[in-house]
Amino acid sequence: MPSTLMTRLTSQTRSSRPWPTARNRIEDLSGPGRPADMSYDLKSIAEHVGGQLDGPPDLVIHALCGIEAAGAGELSFVASKKYAAAAADSSAAALIVATDFECQVPCIRCQDPTAAFNRALKLFAPRREELFPPGVHADSSVDESASVGQDVHIGASAVVGPGCIVGDRSVIAAGAVLAVGARVGEDSLLYPNVSVLRGCIVGDRAILHSGVVIGSDGFGFAREPGALHKIPQIGIVRIGNDVEIGANSCIDRATAGETVIMDFVKIDNLVQVAHNCEIGDRTAISAQSGIGGSTKVGRDVIMAGQVGLADHMSVGDGVIFAAKSGSHGFVAPGRIMAGAPARDHREWVRMNGHLGRLDRYAREIADLKQRVEELENESG
Amino acid sequence: MPSTLMTRLTSQTRSSRPWPTARNRIEDLSGPGRPADMSYDLKSIAEHVGGQLDGPPDLVIHALCGIEAAGAGELSFVASKKYAAAAADSSAAALIVATDFECQVPCIRCQDPTAAFNRALKLFAPRREELFPPGVHADSSVDESASVGQDVHIGASAVVGPGCIVGDRSVIAAGAVLAVGARVGEDSLLYPNVSVLRGCIVGDRAILHSGVVIGSDGFGFAREPGALHKIPQIGIVRIGNDVEIGANSCIDRATAGETVIMDFVKIDNLVQVAHNCEIGDRTAISAQSGIGGSTKVGRDVIMAGQVGLADHMSVGDGVIFAAKSGSHGFVAPGRIMAGAPARDHREWVRMNGHLGRLDRYAREIADLKQRVEELENESG
Amino acid sequence: MPSTLMTRLTSQTRSSRPWPTARNRIEDLSGPGRPADMSYDLKSIAEHVGGQLDGPPDLVIHALCGIEAAGAGELSFVASKKYAAAAADSSAAALIVATDFECQVPCIRCQDPTAAFNRALKLFAPRREELFPPGVHADSSVDESASVGQDVHIGASAVVGPGCIVGDRSVIAAGAVLAVGARVGEDSLLYPNVSVLRGCIVGDRAILHSGVVIGSDGFGFAREPGALHKIPQIGIVRIGNDVEIGANSCIDRATAGETVIMDFVKIDNLVQVAHNCEIGDRTAISAQSGIGGSTKVGRDVIMAGQVGLADHMSVGDGVIFAAKSGSHGFVAPGRIMAGAPARDHREWVRMNGHLGRLDRYAREIADLKQRVEELENESG
Repeated sequence: MPSTLMTRLTSQTRSSRPWPTARNRIEDLSGPGRPADMSYDLKSIAEHVGGQLDGPPDLVIHALCGIEAAGAGELSFVASKKYAAAAADSSAAALIVATDFECQVPCIRCQDPTAAFNRALKLFAPRREELFPPGVHADSSVDESASVGQDVHIGASAVVGPGCIVGDRSVIAAGAVLAVGARVGEDSLLYPNVSVLRGCIVGDRAILHSGVVIGSDGFGFAREPGALHKIPQIGIVRIGNDVEIGANSCIDRATAGETVIMDFVKIDNLVQVAHNCEIGDRTAISAQSGIGGSTKVGRDVIMAGQVGLADHMSVGDGVIFAAKSGSHGFVAPGRIMAGAPARDHREWVRMNGHLGRLDRYAREIADLKQRVEELENESG
Repeated sequence: MPSTLMTRLTSQTRSSRPWPTARNRIEDLSGPGRPADMSYDLKSIAEHVGGQLDGPPDLVIHALCGIEAAGAGELSFVASKKYAAAAADSSAAALIVATDFECQVPCIRCQDPTAAFNRALKLFAPRREELFPPGVHADSSVDESASVGQDVHIGASAVVGPGCIVGDRSVIAAGAVLAVGARVGEDSLLYPNVSVLRGCIVGDRAILHSGVVIGSDGFGFAREPGALHKIPQIGIVRIGNDVEIGANSCIDRATAGETVIMDFVKIDNLVQVAHNCEIGDRTAISAQSGIGGSTKVGRDVIMAGQVGLADHMSVGDGVIFAAKSGSHGFVAPGRIMAGAPARDHREWVRMNGHLGRLDRYAREIADLKQRVEELENESG
Repeated sequence: MPSTLMTRLTSQTRSSRPWPTARNRIEDLSGPGRPADMSYDLKSIAEHVGGQLDGPPDLVIHALCGIEAAGAGELSFVASKKYAAAAADSSAAALIVATDFECQVPCIRCQDPTAAFNRALKLFAPRREELFPPGVHADSSVDESASVGQDVHIGASAVVGPGCIVGDRSVIAAGAVLAVGARVGEDSLLYPNVSVLRGCIVGDRAILHSGVVIGSDGFGFAREPGALHKIPQIGIVRIGNDVEIGANSCIDRATAGETVIMDFVKIDNLVQVAHNCEIGDRTAISAQSGIGGSTKVGRDVIMAGQVGLADHMSVGDGVIFAAKSGSHGFVAPGRIMAGAPARDHREWVRMNGHLGRLDRYAREIADLKQRVEELENESG
């Protein structure tokens, strides 16, 4: 990662750009866990991503990078012709481009450069088994009644409680805690300081990022004179297969029964899912969104950032919520919602147009009043 | 928890429902920490909840569940006649119902089925002393200058720092950290990976869920040319009795003096309470709400989800903030507020009605302009 | 901290105030980590803050406090004449006041009382080296391939992974985790239960509060029939010098390349910064704000609470976003934005005025319709 973004920015008349540049770059990024640990020649990468080589086959690529920050030895990509100027401006050693893209530097040509770059990312991604080698760290704590599968990694200060089950090849990284009776499937990855609480179930190939809490109590209280009494939350959370949950997100356990996160659900950071929710397959929830208690969300739903869904809602398959929208009640499948309270997206766009013209409307009303008054005086 | 929701949903023409069903249920949920660990006969439950038995006294109930997901061996409840159809549809083995409810399955009759179900939840709730048996785990770290009470549970990788005090029967679960001089009262429960920082005080019977941070620094900086200088945050957080704080919520320490959370305050997940706030008795704050610095919130206030209160506010007793509302200044006791900026709830409802009619108003203004013009031409 | 706020509140006709008072104050707050550990005479404090002593030089001050809660032995300050009534009402032993302020109690006079109080805070702040004495705790876990500098504190249950580098005098507090290859500069402070993940870089004099996650994966997936496939996130996070990040905030690693947090950036609690963002020098981001992927934020930007910025934005230097605003696209330097979608602040204020008058506008339109109709009938 040797290129200095700083240099290029000052030397290339980009000074009008509002954003900052990295001043504290450390030149040497090699070492364990660094992206710069591996390198491939361009020919190998072209073969791996299924593209056509247009440049020297033995050009050594040691890292991938975005088009603006890429420098010597780095490969980037040009998603569409929209980025042609950025590509011309780039210091990347090579580019993944569309078949017909005019390119000044060595390149790999293919139909879908973004997809090809994603395949290249897989090539350069550190291997999980190197980052988390199988084994139980001497400074971890695994209860003797727990059942731990083959080739599991349990990190330092990690805790696997009584009756827990950890499937083969799963990772319980440093500082993560499985409380009594928690279960994790196979090939799952729990990052440092994750908490999976009493009796909760995580499926196969799940990824839980640092600070995730699975199975905190639902927020249920009975109000009585002088006190709020806790309603016991005795259910669990059940998380399907191929689920990813972002850093510091929370999934509450059901009051009774199960809070359910279905297969391939993807949840971003700092998201709240309340007790007894059910989230359908492949639904994606962006950062800082929250879902109220007992709400059922369908399949393939998309929630942008900072969305709020009320409790006891039901949301149909394929619904899209725009950022910062807030909704309640029943939302039919396929709708696109925006605003708080949420409306149909087109209606919301039109409404926002009106909001920008309220000044004019107010003036027009005042003007009309005056003119009508004059007409009344005349006719009077 | 043997019933398969999946089966019932496909076999009972519920396919039109937009929400998903659990496909990866594990049949055997017994084991430590599981809800299925205990069972009671229907007669015992009826006695415990104070209801009238209407069914076989020896019917074995091994779990509680919501009306839709409940299956064989499970007890659910019918909160009101609104759920009569769901009750008829349910596969629950037995139901808690109102005195006059027409019920096809064994039931327990009582005046307030919801309250009775809550009492049943207590019966089935795992005992804290089983989940967190008294004792100090060999893999925990308790400073020799700390003072730890009777029958305290301190989990693996938990840390109790110098000068800390932990009251009798309190739980410091795995991975939780009490920094120097932190104090926790009696019968309190700190879940895994909680952090209570320097000098902060937690009362009796508190519940702090995983990832809670008590005593992070307030956000205070002095802007000077080329730098933002930190204003030291030397105060503490003081948390009263019977307080519950949800997963990954943060309470900042006071700049000087104390941030105060009073008795019976209930805080949901991912909530932010800034430095020098005071939150009054029995106030309930839903998920992802935030309160700015030095704001005083009264007693019995209710904040729905994703509410934002500015700094230096004062909020009277019994105020209700609707979801996603944002407020500043002084809010008189008893008001119901909605929107951002927050208005009186009724005014906000009316305003939202107008927003939905802006299309019509704009057309009407245009129409009036034309008609007035015609009148002017005629009279001219 | 002996004064009982309770007593003063009930005895001084403040009962009309809506906020609560602390009922569970513990009288004796001495002990390690407590603010009451040190005391100074008023003369020393006056010299330290550069003010003029107006009172007994040997008056002992043992704590600092806000004007309302301050009591015997405590020093507070009067920021401006606006607080004259509160000052007259206060039980503080002494006050820091403006040069010409009329003061009934011993005081320190100076031009900028707030700045002087901030200097006094430094005097009373506990010393970091006392809270976190140099040394590696026996219950921590430091990989033998890690490189740890001079006078570093590594707390109990803290984990320093393979290849990590920790600079001189830095603190890795209890339960914090540095994953493989993470680097922390000099004089930095990582509070309990922080996670700095693979390969991420933290500069000098950084403060990361509890629960912070540096280097969680960016939220990137490719949608294919029946599945959402993860796009590998192989980049890192690079954090400059003098940065502070609040409790439970998350900074995602770049897909490729670096997510960059520049020098003197200050981030509050529960903030989300997505992959490939760049945040410029001295930008301050308040609690629960979120920034979408690849967005570049300039220098000296201020984001109030619960702000949302979309992905691929660029925000100029010195922009201010009001609380709860939501923005996308390009925002020119120096603008003040409010609302969602965000507008120029003055325009937003005017728009909100109109919203409060929609009732009237609707009535006026109806009235005009009627009057125009009458005119039409007359002229017809």
